[in-house]
Amino acid sequence: MASHDKVKVAVLGASGYSGIEAVRLLAAHPFLEMSVLTSEHYAGREVAEVFRHLAGIDLPPFEELRTDLLSGRAEVVISCLPERVGPNIIAELLNCGMKVIDLSADFRLKDAAAYRQAYGVEHPAPHLLGSAVYGLSEFNRRELREARLVANPGCYPTGALLGILPLIRRDLVDPSSIIIDAKSGTTGARRQAAIEQLFAEVNENFRPYKVGNHRHTPEIEQEIGTTLGREVATMFVPHLLPVTRGILTSIFVRPRSGTTEEDVRATFEMSFAKSRFVRILKPGVLPELKNVRATNFCEIAFVLERRSQTLCVITAIDNLGKGAAGQAVQNLNLMLGYDEAAGLLTPAPVP
Amino acid sequence: MASHDKVKVAVLGASGYSGIEAVRLLAAHPFLEMSVLTSEHYAGREVAEVFRHLAGIDLPPFEELRTDLLSGRAEVVISCLPERVGPNIIAELLNCGMKVIDLSADFRLKDAAAYRQAYGVEHPAPHLLGSAVYGLSEFNRRELREARLVANPGCYPTGALLGILPLIRRDLVDPSSIIIDAKSGTTGARRQAAIEQLFAEVNENFRPYKVGNHRHTPEIEQEIGTTLGREVATMFVPHLLPVTRGILTSIFVRPRSGTTEEDVRATFEMSFAKSRFVRILKPGVLPELKNVRATNFCEIAFVLERRSQTLCVITAIDNLGKGAAGQAVQNLNLMLGYDEAAGLLTPAPVP
Amino acid sequence: MASHDKVKVAVLGASGYSGIEAVRLLAAHPFLEMSVLTSEHYAGREVAEVFRHLAGIDLPPFEELRTDLLSGRAEVVISCLPERVGPNIIAELLNCGMKVIDLSADFRLKDAAAYRQAYGVEHPAPHLLGSAVYGLSEFNRRELREARLVANPGCYPTGALLGILPLIRRDLVDPSSIIIDAKSGTTGARRQAAIEQLFAEVNENFRPYKVGNHRHTPEIEQEIGTTLGREVATMFVPHLLPVTRGILTSIFVRPRSGTTEEDVRATFEMSFAKSRFVRILKPGVLPELKNVRATNFCEIAFVLERRSQTLCVITAIDNLGKGAAGQAVQNLNLMLGYDEAAGLLTPAPVP
Amino acid sequence: MASHDKVKVAVLGASGYSGIEAVRLLAAHPFLEMSVLTSEHYAGREVAEVFRHLAGIDLPPFEELRTDLLSGRAEVVISCLPERVGPNIIAELLNCGMKVIDLSADFRLKDAAAYRQAYGVEHPAPHLLGSAVYGLSEFNRRELREARLVANPGCYPTGALLGILPLIRRDLVDPSSIIIDAKSGTTGARRQAAIEQLFAEVNENFRPYKVGNHRHTPEIEQEIGTTLGREVATMFVPHLLPVTRGILTSIFVRPRSGTTEEDVRATFEMSFAKSRFVRILKPGVLPELKNVRATNFCEIAFVLERRSQTLCVITAIDNLGKGAAGQAVQNLNLMLGYDEAAGLLTPAPVP
Repeated sequence: MASHDKVKVAVLGASGYSGIEAVRLLAAHPFLEMSVLTSEHYAGREVAEVFRHLAGIDLPPFEELRTDLLSGRAEVVISCLPERVGPNIIAELLNCGMKVIDLSADFRLKDAAAYRQAYGVEHPAPHLLGSAVYGLSEFNRRELREARLVANPGCYPTGALLGILPLIRRDLVDPSSIIIDAKSGTTGARRQAAIEQLFAEVNENFRPYKVGNHRHTPEIEQEIGTTLGREVATMFVPHLLPVTRGILTSIFVRPRSGTTEEDVRATFEMSFAKSRFVRILKPGVLPELKNVRATNFCEIAFVLERRSQTLCVITAIDNLGKGAAGQAVQNLNLMLGYDEAAGLLTPAPVP
Repeated sequence: MASHDKVKVAVLGASGYSGIEAVRLLAAHPFLEMSVLTSEHYAGREVAEVFRHLAGIDLPPFEELRTDLLSGRAEVVISCLPERVGPNIIAELLNCGMKVIDLSADFRLKDAAAYRQAYGVEHPAPHLLGSAVYGLSEFNRRELREARLVANPGCYPTGALLGILPLIRRDLVDPSSIIIDAKSGTTGARRQAAIEQLFAEVNENFRPYKVGNHRHTPEIEQEIGTTLGREVATMFVPHLLPVTRGILTSIFVRPRSGTTEEDVRATFEMSFAKSRFVRILKPGVLPELKNVRATNFCEIAFVLERRSQTLCVITAIDNLGKGAAGQAVQNLNLMLGYDEAAGLLTPAPVP
Repeated sequence: MASHDKVKVAVLGASGYSGIEAVRLLAAHPFLEMSVLTSEHYAGREVAEVFRHLAGIDLPPFEELRTDLLSGRAEVVISCLPERVGPNIIAELLNCGMKVIDLSADFRLKDAAAYRQAYGVEHPAPHLLGSAVYGLSEFNRRELREARLVANPGCYPTGALLGILPLIRRDLVDPSSIIIDAKSGTTGARRQAAIEQLFAEVNENFRPYKVGNHRHTPEIEQEIGTTLGREVATMFVPHLLPVTRGILTSIFVRPRSGTTEEDVRATFEMSFAKSRFVRILKPGVLPELKNVRATNFCEIAFVLERRSQTLCVITAIDNLGKGAAGQAVQNLNLMLGYDEAAGLLTPAPVP
Repeated sequence: MASHDKVKVAVLGASGYSGIEAVRLLAAHPFLEMSVLTSEHYAGREVAEVFRHLAGIDLPPFEELRTDLLSGRAEVVISCLPERVGPNIIAELLNCGMKVIDLSADFRLKDAAAYRQAYGVEHPAPHLLGSAVYGLSEFNRRELREARLVANPGCYPTGALLGILPLIRRDLVDPSSIIIDAKSGTTGARRQAAIEQLFAEVNENFRPYKVGNHRHTPEIEQEIGTTLGREVATMFVPHLLPVTRGILTSIFVRPRSGTTEEDVRATFEMSFAKSRFVRILKPGVLPELKNVRATNFCEIAFVLERRSQTLCVITAIDNLGKGAAGQAVQNLNLMLGYDEAAGLLTPAPVP
């Protein structure tokens, strides 16, 4: 496809971990080309000067973000701006007719009050909350195809919801019993200087944080609640792993009496029958981070433990892939009418 | 204390990860000296030739294990022999009047039938099962002081039981709801060549294994059941962390209605009031592996999450320390009438 | 390109680290398809069952290596068989008209006597040594286009020679003063169980090995010597890094009096003017492993230190990429008349 | 020894990596007690609140540094203040009669002009340069016993000088040919937020930095030059390893004609005959970081490579141990007339 036929994409906040991963993925996309890359920190510099792994790829230089200068230069925008920075900018871009995928949490919660509670401030653009589509691709393909504003899911919610939503939909489990124990690599946090993210603090260490009060909890509960038709409370415990990428999520839930292993397997297989990125593993096989690293894939396995009456579902994703930039590109594919897997099938580099 | 006043200790299987850690700890012990170190692999070689970090310490060379040659050369024996190798040897040593701490699983399960089921073979010395004391030091001090044979707990059971037993004892939680999500460093496995333990397989990876069917499950359930007075089934999920040492364990359990945060805190504080190795963390502070690395300490924190009615207890230990050799030395201190902390208070090397 | 137009490639020993990397790279190649994958260990199993990161890709199952069954099923063969296993098999395949790229050291040394000295045995197929082309792509393109048997360079020699050969060719340095200090990730060793490669032995460690007597030394010296027209002795010190992939090589050499920074820069730039995989870094910028990970790229920088009269050249490659499977595919592209970069331009996954 | 008999030590800048390591070491010291710990960042907080691995140890809280409040509260001071912050404070403390060990670079260079060139500013207290003793313990014991101000060596210089000074002293090598290739863990840098020290930037990476222009070069050259009696230029290349602690240094140097392996071995053995912290390894054995981690030990090996006429000396130390706080305590032992090994013989925690 000649370059002038490609759809122009802008990436805002392109020098953070999610942003530069979006750039890496878009660089390999057959139908898209990057026309604008913004970075507060590196404005004016060539991308390959800062991120040498992208040398040799034809990319625009980093520039300052000025919405008045974006008009006409891109049809779609992937916003990797931090929470609360983006909404007004995004509102302007939508007004100019662009489509936007927002990787921040700003448009994920449908309820402005829930936003206020989770983030401690009023939502900057509450009028857009209604039209924003939650971008969990596998569950919202139809809406995503029509969407103009997509709220790309959080990394933890993606790992959790892919494992639990199918079971909720089919009423195979007791929704009041959901416990989520998740473990993330360090790029789940932003690329900014912080003592607790220094190599010497993370290496050879492992620790939980924000037990029972992480900001992703309301997002997870909203999506389960929407599926269920009523509110639900879950216990969510995140941990920091000494790896760069990846989230492994263990979900514990009480099965409905009568739920069999076959029920669970059939449900997962049907739910993801059309999903090229979700791998339901065979009995006895369990997810591993390495198999999904630097990809948009998700591995899922489950164990129904009769003695303790517990169903354990385990998922593995890359927090920057399916948990951020990968899913953003998948959503962009859906929004633009392409094969949802376009540009996303490169296998993980193992080992 | 002059060397000839010190109690002589033999370490069997001293060149594995637990064994060599026992040697390191005993080398710093004020009242003990190592008189015999056996190693099948390195028999005949000086310890410091193989494990150079022990250079400069006066140690006997590795020798073959011959029980007939042990008699009179040691008063106490720490056995780090693999499962099923030890029992007959241990029976002989006990006959010769030695005291034995066994780090294998051989004497942990009281019930020979449970052993058969977990390990697939008949127990080699079932007559000793009755007299073996389960060496979870904090809960069995009295019995340990009189013990001649101590079954040193498994690393996962130690991390789990320190977090759950106090709550069971005080009936603060529903024992049928226990879920244990544990994450271990690689030295939880033996020091033997195996492709899945190669650096390139473990590094930048994280994975669960033996979900719901790990051999430590019956051990955990036995101890909870004994405390409770009836059988109990738990869900136990171990994972392999890309770190060398440490186990972080998250325990999820439903609190009895009426159980308050104060109840839980008071229970932990009372249970471990005399325990110099257990640190109950302040509210808002959470365990980290690094703080217990290379020590016999255990960090414990808990969060009582009202919305989902879940109590989450989190513990951190070093699998080779409190989870193996450290606890063995602590038990040995108890058996010999010393301060249980003798030789064990060196702080973790952080960072 | 339709599948039936693609050239058929066999990968022998496809389940080792280099082998499976070749499979990953070939899976993305526009003009090649894998028709045969052999693995002693996994014969009979689907690739994706063992290497799940390759799930979803159309691949033949692993099979036993039987040369009589290969005939007609592949035009080109990438052999990742261990040293001394391959030569007789390769001789047979050449007889059947196939082209072969051998990743072992078997055909790298031109001199059967040097082989005997380095490997302690007679060469199994000395009659082929003369026709084997040394596959350092950037320096032997012409010969590689005509080659039927390519000896793919070792990972250390690749990292060293890319940094030193241009300087030797232009006589900018004293060849008797070459010191090579190289640091490799663990996949430089084979994927086989070994205690010294366990995670707990490599992690948080760093160590030199085979100082001054590594088997790659004669290979490096042969190539420098051939360029120079006379024998040369170098000091080569390899180290084991706690990373999965990558080799960083520091080369120290005394510049000829009069050699300027401009001379060196011009020489590197000319030498690699047509090389899309070699990045000569700007002054003040230095190579890093992360920028070349999982790619066929090589970063090169140099510092001419006047005070000590030392020229330090530093190169970074991925030992499995440019140091093994990547260069094999590059050579295969040359042998088959394709663009040498076909299938090899995917950027490194950073972070 | 009763607490009131112990010598009182103040640690300034006690919450950085070197500072907190000094605290850890002093906590185990038989003759010293910490009376003052200063920390700009954590003033007013208990040490164990910030550094939980030190819980259970009797320590004063962190306080602000006010020299007027130090008088009479400590006999000796270990200063871990950053470069240029310390000199005036140290001058005051010396005036009050305290002895000071400074871990910064401020008093290492004897020549104020060299300081200006390396650090770009005038030395704040040049009158003290003459009396400061360079604290490379193994070579300056006599001066250290009398010293009132000790300039503790840099981590890189310590690793390099222990390997090269004995050879210079005995004139076994050509001093104009010294090349030093050093690899350090991340705690060689200060404990402060910086993007390039984030886990995701360091992990799975390896990179050189400041090739030929690192600030430790003049320090290394000064000490070699002093030993030699004339100026010398060396090539020094540092690298950043993805490990928390440790420096491995390879030193390449041309042996004098006639220098034999026996000469080199005898020289090292004599030079370190009285040094309990230096381990000269047997032929064929090579240094590893893990064996010296969290200790004051140094491993040294060498290979005299005839073909290339190169002597390679390799040393391993812990940058926070022998490279900083460990050596500071060793020097403090010398200054106070204790056994230089007091409190420093705990073996490395391996694995």
